[in-house]
Amino acid sequence: MSAHTEQSSHTERAAVTVVGLGPMGRALAGAFLDAGVRTTVWNRTPGRDQELVARGAVSAPSLEEAVAASKLTVVCVVDYDAVDALLRPEAVTAALKGRTVVNLTADTPDRARDTAAWAAEHGVRYLDGAIMTPTVTIGTPAGVFIHSGPKDLYDEHKPVLDELGGAHTHLGEDIGRAAAYDVALLDIFWTAMAGYAHALAVARAEGITAGELAPFAKGIGDILPPIFEGLAVEVDNGTASPEGTPLTSVASSMSHIVHTSEAHGIDAGVIRAAEGLARRAIGQGYGADGFIRVTELLRGR
Amino acid sequence: MSAHTEQSSHTERAAVTVVGLGPMGRALAGAFLDAGVRTTVWNRTPGRDQELVARGAVSAPSLEEAVAASKLTVVCVVDYDAVDALLRPEAVTAALKGRTVVNLTADTPDRARDTAAWAAEHGVRYLDGAIMTPTVTIGTPAGVFIHSGPKDLYDEHKPVLDELGGAHTHLGEDIGRAAAYDVALLDIFWTAMAGYAHALAVARAEGITAGELAPFAKGIGDILPPIFEGLAVEVDNGTASPEGTPLTSVASSMSHIVHTSEAHGIDAGVIRAAEGLARRAIGQGYGADGFIRVTELLRGR
Repeated sequence: MSAHTEQSSHTERAAVTVVGLGPMGRALAGAFLDAGVRTTVWNRTPGRDQELVARGAVSAPSLEEAVAASKLTVVCVVDYDAVDALLRPEAVTAALKGRTVVNLTADTPDRARDTAAWAAEHGVRYLDGAIMTPTVTIGTPAGVFIHSGPKDLYDEHKPVLDELGGAHTHLGEDIGRAAAYDVALLDIFWTAMAGYAHALAVARAEGITAGELAPFAKGIGDILPPIFEGLAVEVDNGTASPEGTPLTSVASSMSHIVHTSEAHGIDAGVIRAAEGLARRAIGQGYGADGFIRVTELLRGR
Repeated sequence: MSAHTEQSSHTERAAVTVVGLGPMGRALAGAFLDAGVRTTVWNRTPGRDQELVARGAVSAPSLEEAVAASKLTVVCVVDYDAVDALLRPEAVTAALKGRTVVNLTADTPDRARDTAAWAAEHGVRYLDGAIMTPTVTIGTPAGVFIHSGPKDLYDEHKPVLDELGGAHTHLGEDIGRAAAYDVALLDIFWTAMAGYAHALAVARAEGITAGELAPFAKGIGDILPPIFEGLAVEVDNGTASPEGTPLTSVASSMSHIVHTSEAHGIDAGVIRAAEGLARRAIGQGYGADGFIRVTELLRGR
């Protein structure tokens, strides 16, 4: 619990400013309002706050007045170029001095570290974070939030952040850690989505509709989570059991996918790149290992 | 049910020959033996049949004698080059005449069609199929088998195939259909695995162990199956709702992954190729659509 009980133990007196009113920013502000938090909102493009104001949000006339209205400002914009453009002008930076920014914008770990250095230089208290679930989960138990930065600062603001619902995890003091998790998890998600989109294109070329493939695709999706967990143990142990499917078989499967795809004139760049990883691992003598062996070759160990 | 009741309604009199005794072939033969099917086995490399023979399998001295021992031969070898090398020599082809081959070897739809043409020319009855689940599922309810080819031939042999346990689905008369499903589903699986391996490499470079990432990676895996099902409906309808994440945001996320990866010296070829798909879709005017729009661009519609 926070030491600032006058601010956080009575939710009707808690206050937050939300900067950025895209779909996610609006969901965040809406969840704060639903929880009874006094919520000030600001967006570069005007007009995005109308529905929130109707629900009780305070519309600030300028960004410096918006951030001055609350001890905590939550930022969620398109990327850190946008964050810099908003927060680094002198008037805004001055208004933020001594206050806390929780930056839920997605970008790279290096950008998070750069923003933290700027914040430290200007007396702005700074936490970085990421939202791992879609807008519809905000304000519900299904939301997943990850945070990094000073633990005491996180503990101080956690009661207000908890008003967003969902699970909040502090990943460590390294300010880049939340962005690193975010990047790694988006890597899994978007690569899988690229595979699915490609599979649907190949299926269609073979006369199979998405609806016909879907029940089997769901079956593939269902086996991934336990496989991910098992392989994590292997990677941390430095092992890569083939489990009946050595890299030589994997590369063979991948080449079947490439050939089928390209025989229909469908670009196979994604799976071709994956096949390249498998073939290089085989060339380095790992043909009898499982595919997860490519992890350590990628990281150059 | 089969018309050949003398062969299939009494499992103790059912008979099958299993050709290919790699991990999957051994699992298939073992499941037939456990079900009381008279099982003849053969493998190019000798010695692989010892444990199966101890369990009651008949070891044939030659491949032509192996296939002559049963009306149904199940083939499961590394690819169709291996299938051709085994089945197309004259003595074996002659022994197969009038008998049925169920080819569970994985390869491309075109190779399945080519093998079917060879079979038709030589009076060999032919079904193609694929096994969608790992060896440990064979003989259990968790096995997933897909088949294609003449429906009456499938119905005739289904009672024996059912002895392998699991779910068997006849996908249609087009002999290439099972291979097409197989290729599409492996596309999803191996692309997702490439994303996971890469994510673990990026995480490690950022000081995050696989075990630390795993609970969140599992969370990503858990949301994929319902997303796959929802997107299948969109693709068949020709829609691509952004659901709060338009292609412009997806491309931005992908470039964060590329930059973080390459800043650590980690090859980003897979996600770079995926980003290329997103960027081309944006360039064609689909920036406000969801990522699944790339499916129809891939297939050139």
